[in-house]
Amino acid sequence: MEKQKSVAVVGGGLVGAMNACYLSSRGFKVDLYEARQDIRTMEIVRGRSINLALSCRGRQALKKVGLEDQVVKDGIPMYARMIHDLNGTLRPIPYGKSDQYIMSVDRRKLNETLLTAAEERPDVTLHFQHKLISCDLEKGKLSFKMNGGADVEVTTDLIMGNDGAYSAIRKHMVKRPRFNYSQEYIPHGYMELTVPPHNGEFAMAINYLHIWPRNEYMMIALPNQDKSFTLTLFMPFDMFDQIKTGDDVMRFFMEKFPDSVPLIGEESLKETYFKLPPLPLVSVKCSPYHVSDKAVIMGDAAHAMVPFYGQGMNCGFEDCLVFDEIMEELGNDLSKVLPEFSVVRSPDAHAICDLAMYNYIEMRESVNSRWFLMRKKVDACLHAIMPRVFIPLYTMVSFSRIRYHVVINKAKKQDVLVDNSIQALMALTAVGGGYLAAVAISRHFNINSITDWIHNMADQILK
Amino acid sequence: MEKQKSVAVVGGGLVGAMNACYLSSRGFKVDLYEARQDIRTMEIVRGRSINLALSCRGRQALKKVGLEDQVVKDGIPMYARMIHDLNGTLRPIPYGKSDQYIMSVDRRKLNETLLTAAEERPDVTLHFQHKLISCDLEKGKLSFKMNGGADVEVTTDLIMGNDGAYSAIRKHMVKRPRFNYSQEYIPHGYMELTVPPHNGEFAMAINYLHIWPRNEYMMIALPNQDKSFTLTLFMPFDMFDQIKTGDDVMRFFMEKFPDSVPLIGEESLKETYFKLPPLPLVSVKCSPYHVSDKAVIMGDAAHAMVPFYGQGMNCGFEDCLVFDEIMEELGNDLSKVLPEFSVVRSPDAHAICDLAMYNYIEMRESVNSRWFLMRKKVDACLHAIMPRVFIPLYTMVSFSRIRYHVVINKAKKQDVLVDNSIQALMALTAVGGGYLAAVAISRHFNINSITDWIHNMADQILK
Repeated sequence: MEKQKSVAVVGGGLVGAMNACYLSSRGFKVDLYEARQDIRTMEIVRGRSINLALSCRGRQALKKVGLEDQVVKDGIPMYARMIHDLNGTLRPIPYGKSDQYIMSVDRRKLNETLLTAAEERPDVTLHFQHKLISCDLEKGKLSFKMNGGADVEVTTDLIMGNDGAYSAIRKHMVKRPRFNYSQEYIPHGYMELTVPPHNGEFAMAINYLHIWPRNEYMMIALPNQDKSFTLTLFMPFDMFDQIKTGDDVMRFFMEKFPDSVPLIGEESLKETYFKLPPLPLVSVKCSPYHVSDKAVIMGDAAHAMVPFYGQGMNCGFEDCLVFDEIMEELGNDLSKVLPEFSVVRSPDAHAICDLAMYNYIEMRESVNSRWFLMRKKVDACLHAIMPRVFIPLYTMVSFSRIRYHVVINKAKKQDVLVDNSIQALMALTAVGGGYLAAVAISRHFNINSITDWIHNMADQILK
Repeated sequence: MEKQKSVAVVGGGLVGAMNACYLSSRGFKVDLYEARQDIRTMEIVRGRSINLALSCRGRQALKKVGLEDQVVKDGIPMYARMIHDLNGTLRPIPYGKSDQYIMSVDRRKLNETLLTAAEERPDVTLHFQHKLISCDLEKGKLSFKMNGGADVEVTTDLIMGNDGAYSAIRKHMVKRPRFNYSQEYIPHGYMELTVPPHNGEFAMAINYLHIWPRNEYMMIALPNQDKSFTLTLFMPFDMFDQIKTGDDVMRFFMEKFPDSVPLIGEESLKETYFKLPPLPLVSVKCSPYHVSDKAVIMGDAAHAMVPFYGQGMNCGFEDCLVFDEIMEELGNDLSKVLPEFSVVRSPDAHAICDLAMYNYIEMRESVNSRWFLMRKKVDACLHAIMPRVFIPLYTMVSFSRIRYHVVINKAKKQDVLVDNSIQALMALTAVGGGYLAAVAISRHFNINSITDWIHNMADQILK
């Protein structure tokens, strides 16, 4: 019998905990190391996080490890964007067909569910308060500092780096020869605020992702299980910097997001705004994701992205699923699986990073334009006519597992198709206009009908 | 009187040595720290370097510190590319007008000239064999390990990071919040070979940059003062890997670069090929280039680029010149100069990194196409007609100080102009063709002339 392989999962966030489940199912002896303490035993979790929107890819990954139902029962479906115009008008724009939705889920709760699920699997041990100090990726060696102070040395068959956007494992990869890497900060930062329940009920329509698009900046809101909403304000840092006092905050919100002020509450708004500084948003791309047959990175460690497509977690979860599919295909041979994972996954991760950056403009600006609304309708119409051939971009990203890089290529082709259709429509309109003009002229010159007139012309020429 | 300001220049390569000259002229007390020993006292300089092609920007920067004449007198002008086709045909393609040239210069000699010039300036001290161990960019603190073993602690008004593509100063910047950074390795590596003098003379035409473009890979050669040529072979790493024996080398060169084999010499070729492994080529972009009023990076530390536009050194030298121009403009106020340098210079450096990547394809592939040759002629023709309005891309990059990012925008507009001109030409050709066809038809139908025929037609319609 083959010796059981060991894996050290570095990071006990969403992707790390999910990988612990997957790798246990594949027969690995799993040790998961997390620098912070066990969030299941913490009263308050420090640090903020953008709300999570679970969609198809994430659900598929949860399903394969048998956790979809458990997670979904605590989620809140969001069927459409709800646009809050400056004058208070509300406009819903559906995400897809009437039965398609993304789901607001609680990050902490989801992380706890995954950790508990991992812990219940065979051969999984969770080690909290273990901070990575050094590692040798080629040799599979890691050393951690325990909270108590003792150092722990580990040698393992596989290092699974799931330690987030500022990954320590990736920092070791960046130093290696011919490793491609980029980190890009956008000019916008984000800040979280809260809309509490009003009279024990949700203060706004529940099944929507609320958006206040103001072109240069925007605010969004996602519903929580406790009937509150978490608001996130995205704005350039230099605009945040200009708001210095409670009065500045009130003036800004009354002018730009007037309908939100009574929902948040004046006092709460003034207080929360200055509690924590706005946080930066980074997009990270790199390749390859592996070192020989010994180490691999996934999730934000491999591809942190701006949060505007709601795909950060979904892509991270899909990483686990794709890795598992490749393990299946290549018979668990890590010397083949790791390079294959890099080849297969990096173009897709690069693509969703780009799409997220693109949606950053769409969410705060394009949704305000009539062209955007018309385009959404044209897309829905074409999708209804040719459901397999024409699939709207948002649908491909959020409601399918079409590879992200294929999504981009397909979307480009579809754009050409739509442009041509619109041109054809305009040409028809022009012909129609020409026809009307011709009728007018024929009446003026006392010619009975336009066809008579054309026949006359043709006769003259051909005779 | 104002207290004299101090600067620690980290790196004694081309850009560091030039900055020592510039900053001395601006009244700084300059200490330059270089990790390696003084190249002026070394017999053989380890490590290889791609040949240098000095052009307008580099010369302007040298000129302002009074070193242009001294450097240029040892250079060899190159007026054109000399294309070596597979069948041995030689085809020159000029770089610009008949009096425009780029200049092959010896990296070591140039570095020595700059170090000696720096040393002769007031208040400049060179410290060799000082390796940077740690630094605090915000506080202007550096510590170096001397070769002997003692540590040197330095506190300075300005840290000038000129320590190359793998810059230690930049590594400290990458860790700072909201610092944008990317490193991209191309699939190609490079290897240097030599064509020695033949019978005491240059073995090939001297005043050219020789190119063997083979689409997927290429070889180039630049003339040296000692009548040798330095050859550089650029090829994907996996192609390098496939050549394993002396016989493989000979087979490859005889098949792909047959005319170069007698020039290099069989024995020398086989020996040199395996002496050192091919080296990687990296493109580095980042921003900003400064930390408060205390630290700034320039040259490869700020923007390493692939070598295909011959602008790495020229851009680095221009950095020094631009910095000096901003110092002049803003009265040496570092708290204003450093942010301004980042704002002004990073879009230009990003642009030339992109252009260099673009030329990577042009040099090995496009030069083989008839379209490319026609385009070069069209460009030269348009430039002759409108010398200020239309300037060929290569001319803007190599023979002007037009800002690199402006070069890209201007080149794009010019491309549209050329495309439209060519379309107009084709339309004229089509009209001409149509005319000929009409004449043929009119003869066939016994109509005397085409104008008669058109007039006949018109009469029929209008009557």
